[in-house]
Amino acid sequence: MNLVLGIDGGGTSCRAALATLAGDIIGRGKSGPANIMTDLTGARHNIVEAARLAFVDAGKDSTMISATDAVLGLAGTNVGGYRQQLEAVLPFRRSLVESDAVIALNGALGERDGAIAIIGTGSIFMSRKGAAMQTIGGWGFMLGDLGGGARIGRDLLQEVLVAHDDIRPGSELTHAVMAHFGGDPREIVKFAAASKPADFGNFAPLVFDFAARGDSVGSRVIARAVGDVEEALDALKLEPDQILCLLGGLAALIAPQLSHRYRMMLRPPLQDALGGAVSMAARLFGAPKGGADG
Amino acid sequence: MNLVLGIDGGGTSCRAALATLAGDIIGRGKSGPANIMTDLTGARHNIVEAARLAFVDAGKDSTMISATDAVLGLAGTNVGGYRQQLEAVLPFRRSLVESDAVIALNGALGERDGAIAIIGTGSIFMSRKGAAMQTIGGWGFMLGDLGGGARIGRDLLQEVLVAHDDIRPGSELTHAVMAHFGGDPREIVKFAAASKPADFGNFAPLVFDFAARGDSVGSRVIARAVGDVEEALDALKLEPDQILCLLGGLAALIAPQLSHRYRMMLRPPLQDALGGAVSMAARLFGAPKGGADG
Repeated sequence: MNLVLGIDGGGTSCRAALATLAGDIIGRGKSGPANIMTDLTGARHNIVEAARLAFVDAGKDSTMISATDAVLGLAGTNVGGYRQQLEAVLPFRRSLVESDAVIALNGALGERDGAIAIIGTGSIFMSRKGAAMQTIGGWGFMLGDLGGGARIGRDLLQEVLVAHDDIRPGSELTHAVMAHFGGDPREIVKFAAASKPADFGNFAPLVFDFAARGDSVGSRVIARAVGDVEEALDALKLEPDQILCLLGGLAALIAPQLSHRYRMMLRPPLQDALGGAVSMAARLFGAPKGGADG
Repeated sequence: MNLVLGIDGGGTSCRAALATLAGDIIGRGKSGPANIMTDLTGARHNIVEAARLAFVDAGKDSTMISATDAVLGLAGTNVGGYRQQLEAVLPFRRSLVESDAVIALNGALGERDGAIAIIGTGSIFMSRKGAAMQTIGGWGFMLGDLGGGARIGRDLLQEVLVAHDDIRPGSELTHAVMAHFGGDPREIVKFAAASKPADFGNFAPLVFDFAARGDSVGSRVIARAVGDVEEALDALKLEPDQILCLLGGLAALIAPQLSHRYRMMLRPPLQDALGGAVSMAARLFGAPKGGADG
């Protein structure tokens, strides 16, 4: 067998790519969510289905799955036990299950040193220097994910209630949000009680939009988020000549707000996270010496 | 019938007091939770049971409940509909359902003008000047309750993760909390996902304790909470000669931290919330002119 699989699984879908040992992708497949924390059996099913579709897409016999090595990047791997449980039931010849951030880092940086900041609904920061990796954040909406969209949305809604109570002045943004909720603060409280992080995150682009037009509350919320991102980057202790890639749904909105120092380090990612998983698989399992055993 | 009922219902218990038209309490009763948002039928049951026990305690015939007027202070009355639904099924002759904060204000201030700040797991602020009442806060753990114990606990746990990631320096307090969770930040994330506001609030006394001993993170968290309380008090626009009562489980810990201006206004409450409900009932239903109809 001279092929490898890269797999990128998340809460909404699972993507697989079949590639040569040189890392050239020859087939792709996509299936449903692969959340190993909430549904391990369903995640396994969708991982295998995406891999099967990648074989079909490449015109290859999908029964060869059991003879193929795979690198998987999945959300939730840092919570104890799930990763080992999944590795035990995967049908591939050899499997390496990593976090979604690790394959994103490998995709963005290739084999270079540097750092990534993934800023979407949540936030996580990673750096690599040789074999040394450092991860910051990624602790989720309630206590972490600082600078991410969900925290921006939550911060906004808190500011709307604070303005409603005349504790601090409101702005066009808080008035617009209050109008969106029919002028009733209790509707905001009900929304918050029923919402997932992504629902809060849906407000983030609006906040950037108002902040760009000088809205006082919007500017305060964004300044706080950007400050949180910068503090996390500071903790990575990057050298000025290092590469920094901003990834995730808010990357393009956060990037122009960063301080000069970090803007100078920004480079576009080489590949996406799936490409990172493929590259890792080719490097790990395709090397002439036989590669590692995961 | 020359008796009135005051009732104080909350998430853990319901208390009733039977009183003369002059407001003198002659019997008391206590039953289970009266949370009208989560269990209206159960709340009605416990309200009636507490009232019945108050009649028994006073040596009175409890079938007289249907001939007795009542003032009830209950959590959750500001969320649309529950209050009207409850009033429709109560067995008293006339019923006035108010928020728990309104009866607390009447208990603390009597008939005087002034303000209260209830700071326990959550936070809410109210002032009265003649017939005019103003309420600030009370929007719950996710977006409000600033300065309350649950927000203090949540803020602490966020600081512990931030210190774990070396984003900001830790302290004896963050080390103690991390040790409490076995040194594993994922245990903190799991705790947060499974916890109710009161669980977060359980950390608040610890934060005050460390802050009093000069702990840097503890002091920062408490300073933020006290700042939030002061901002809310500022929004009530109190005059220097007005009375301010601090109520709730954290009142004694917050009071010494307030600025001189507010410390000078502090007075002990005249009565607790149940006493406030009784006074309101006596005033409203016991007046010779027959009182209001609720």
